[in-house]
Amino acid sequence: MNDPLPTQRMSDLGSTEASSAASPFRLAARAARLNPSIIREILKLTQRPGVISLAGGLPAAELFPVGEVREAADRVLRETPREALQYAPSEGFEPLREWVAQSLQAQGVAASAGQVLITNGSQQGLDLIGKVLLDPGSTVAVESPTYLGALQAFAPFEPEVIELAGDADGPTPEALRAARGARFAYLLPNFQNPSGHCLPEGRRAALVDAAREARMPIVEDDPYGELWYDAAPPPGLVGRWPEGVLRLGSFSKVLVPGLRLGWLLAPPGLFPKLLQAKQAADLHTTGFNQRVAFEVLRGGLLERHLPIVRARYRERRDAMADALRRHLGPGWRWETPGGGMFFWLEGPTHAPGLDTLALLPRAVERGVAFVPGAAFYADAMRAPTNRLRLSFVTVEPAVIEDGVARLARVLGDAADAAASDRASKAAIIAG
Amino acid sequence: MNDPLPTQRMSDLGSTEASSAASPFRLAARAARLNPSIIREILKLTQRPGVISLAGGLPAAELFPVGEVREAADRVLRETPREALQYAPSEGFEPLREWVAQSLQAQGVAASAGQVLITNGSQQGLDLIGKVLLDPGSTVAVESPTYLGALQAFAPFEPEVIELAGDADGPTPEALRAARGARFAYLLPNFQNPSGHCLPEGRRAALVDAAREARMPIVEDDPYGELWYDAAPPPGLVGRWPEGVLRLGSFSKVLVPGLRLGWLLAPPGLFPKLLQAKQAADLHTTGFNQRVAFEVLRGGLLERHLPIVRARYRERRDAMADALRRHLGPGWRWETPGGGMFFWLEGPTHAPGLDTLALLPRAVERGVAFVPGAAFYADAMRAPTNRLRLSFVTVEPAVIEDGVARLARVLGDAADAAASDRASKAAIIAG
Repeated sequence: MNDPLPTQRMSDLGSTEASSAASPFRLAARAARLNPSIIREILKLTQRPGVISLAGGLPAAELFPVGEVREAADRVLRETPREALQYAPSEGFEPLREWVAQSLQAQGVAASAGQVLITNGSQQGLDLIGKVLLDPGSTVAVESPTYLGALQAFAPFEPEVIELAGDADGPTPEALRAARGARFAYLLPNFQNPSGHCLPEGRRAALVDAAREARMPIVEDDPYGELWYDAAPPPGLVGRWPEGVLRLGSFSKVLVPGLRLGWLLAPPGLFPKLLQAKQAADLHTTGFNQRVAFEVLRGGLLERHLPIVRARYRERRDAMADALRRHLGPGWRWETPGGGMFFWLEGPTHAPGLDTLALLPRAVERGVAFVPGAAFYADAMRAPTNRLRLSFVTVEPAVIEDGVARLARVLGDAADAAASDRASKAAIIAG
Repeated sequence: MNDPLPTQRMSDLGSTEASSAASPFRLAARAARLNPSIIREILKLTQRPGVISLAGGLPAAELFPVGEVREAADRVLRETPREALQYAPSEGFEPLREWVAQSLQAQGVAASAGQVLITNGSQQGLDLIGKVLLDPGSTVAVESPTYLGALQAFAPFEPEVIELAGDADGPTPEALRAARGARFAYLLPNFQNPSGHCLPEGRRAALVDAAREARMPIVEDDPYGELWYDAAPPPGLVGRWPEGVLRLGSFSKVLVPGLRLGWLLAPPGLFPKLLQAKQAADLHTTGFNQRVAFEVLRGGLLERHLPIVRARYRERRDAMADALRRHLGPGWRWETPGGGMFFWLEGPTHAPGLDTLALLPRAVERGVAFVPGAAFYADAMRAPTNRLRLSFVTVEPAVIEDGVARLARVLGDAADAAASDRASKAAIIAG
């Protein structure tokens, strides 16, 4: 339990693919930065029967607007089958780009369709940004903790990752200023993955000011902004500095993930290279799916559908908040998120032996899964070991109750064991 | 017309996006290697009304199996909507991976589904291979000419590109041996884009032997192998050296491009890093489309559909061969391709002023478009200027006849002009 290398240990959780067959051929240096996705490997573990998974990052499939998607697919394949099934522009399907631009305009952002690039989920936007902006050894500033998938997307471009120090409001402008020279700052202002945190208005303004002064572009990733349960979040970052903010959006959380559609709004000075990177990467995003999504969206689906999703997710969030309050032992801390999909739990600081990564196999044996917090830190060597992420969106309230109770027992036992371990050590030393 | 920099001049053909707004932020060094896709820019030019485009690389949309795709989409969204629209495995939809493996097994290739990665068209396979195998300054060996999209996919990884010298049979084993140390050789054995050339059996064996001796993996790209019009091509390269050949396949030419599905078969020693690169790039390929494709394929669509496509494309190929024979002036050479989509024309060597890139705008004015040959050479500085590519698959025979006649007039005028230019220069020198 004293292994100081969480990433190595995390890869032990996964399949043995990476180690079972070394390449007989010379690989690129960057290949050493490519590693199995910890979360995907964890998800495999949690698919055992009887395990309540609070580990996922998936939206609730029972809420998918299946009928609307089916009707839209049928309409597209009746009305414009040959256009939909032919090669398509790298920029994306023009009406969908327009739809994105208009949604942003409705939020007060001066965006034009010509700045919108349709991507294969917003993950591809991260890859393209890394490709265009990151050199080996250049720096990128991220929140701490931050979205694991972004760290994975940037890793092949071999940057040094700077974790921005923060306070209760989020990363501080001072930390951002201190990161001057970074190619960009990667921020998730709304109900962040994994922390659930929402940047308050004042901090948004201060961070954008600091970035503008430092001439450091901001990558604003916002998959969860529409998933708010108490009040809509403050306006985003891009409207405060359109020339310097690259805004990522996704249809995965508000519509469905399986169409694999996201988008990237880029300042005009950055758009052409991102477009060329897209062409080089896969020519274009499937035109069929873009047309299906547009058909669904232009019918006003989101206006009808989002309130349903919000109500259901809110109920589950409340169930988890309630269960955590009732079951979790002393010393555990969390904020109830105002939106998004996750609770972020921080263990007792007086339990230094607590290691959520080491606890995961035991938790799975006891029928509950979570994601260890260490997965979300750029600097695995120094990642705190006492944190974990819980998702509430795919689980019914009664099951959340059961899952949290199981988790609390595992965590309680671990805290006891850590305390008794310290007591024995103290006894030995005293002896 | 004496500008020695075809790439610069080619970018002049394109939009002004790249130059109109320089980035105010620091870009990665590799961004300098990203440039507008020449072919896509040319395709924009050719969309003028009245222009017969022989420039495309698109399959014929009137042959798309629209009814089958619509039925399959409907079935998938009725029977497994939530699975199809949820996040999906990075490797791909298991039954589709199995289908690919079985297709290869039927060709005598020892392939397992575990080695198959489903990609967003085979273009993404090229990107992932570049990411995993190419360092800045490392070398990659390609045919000369070769597929422009591959050059674009590899470019961001900043390799040095070695053009393999060839003879009438294709690239020579000696050239491949001389490229020892290259991270891989990129080859299109079947009806190559742009040359239409099909590697004969003996050359395939000799190239694989040379690569194995040099311990140089081969990337075998085969989008056109099923599009043969006289006889099926010889067995591919991967069956001859499964441990060293990465095989790319595409559903774009045999099914439809718009689902954006391709695949990559990798040796077990290379598969894990390619999978991790896929996860980093976009998590996974749309599961919905994979299920739709699988539904269409497992019903035996290709067995019914491919003979129809082959018959139609053969008719158009024959029309173009006939038109070229009747219209083209002396000194122009071409092979009639046994499959694929393209004729590759080589202009008279006694017309050194001939420059197909410079001719393109004049050709478009006269109502016909082609792709200048210089687009297909890694070394733009030394690319021959007297070549061009014609596509025959999307154009009716009567229109092919008309288009080739227009082209022949433009080329004939150009040859005359070049000859008279030489004569004037000779007169000046003599004077």
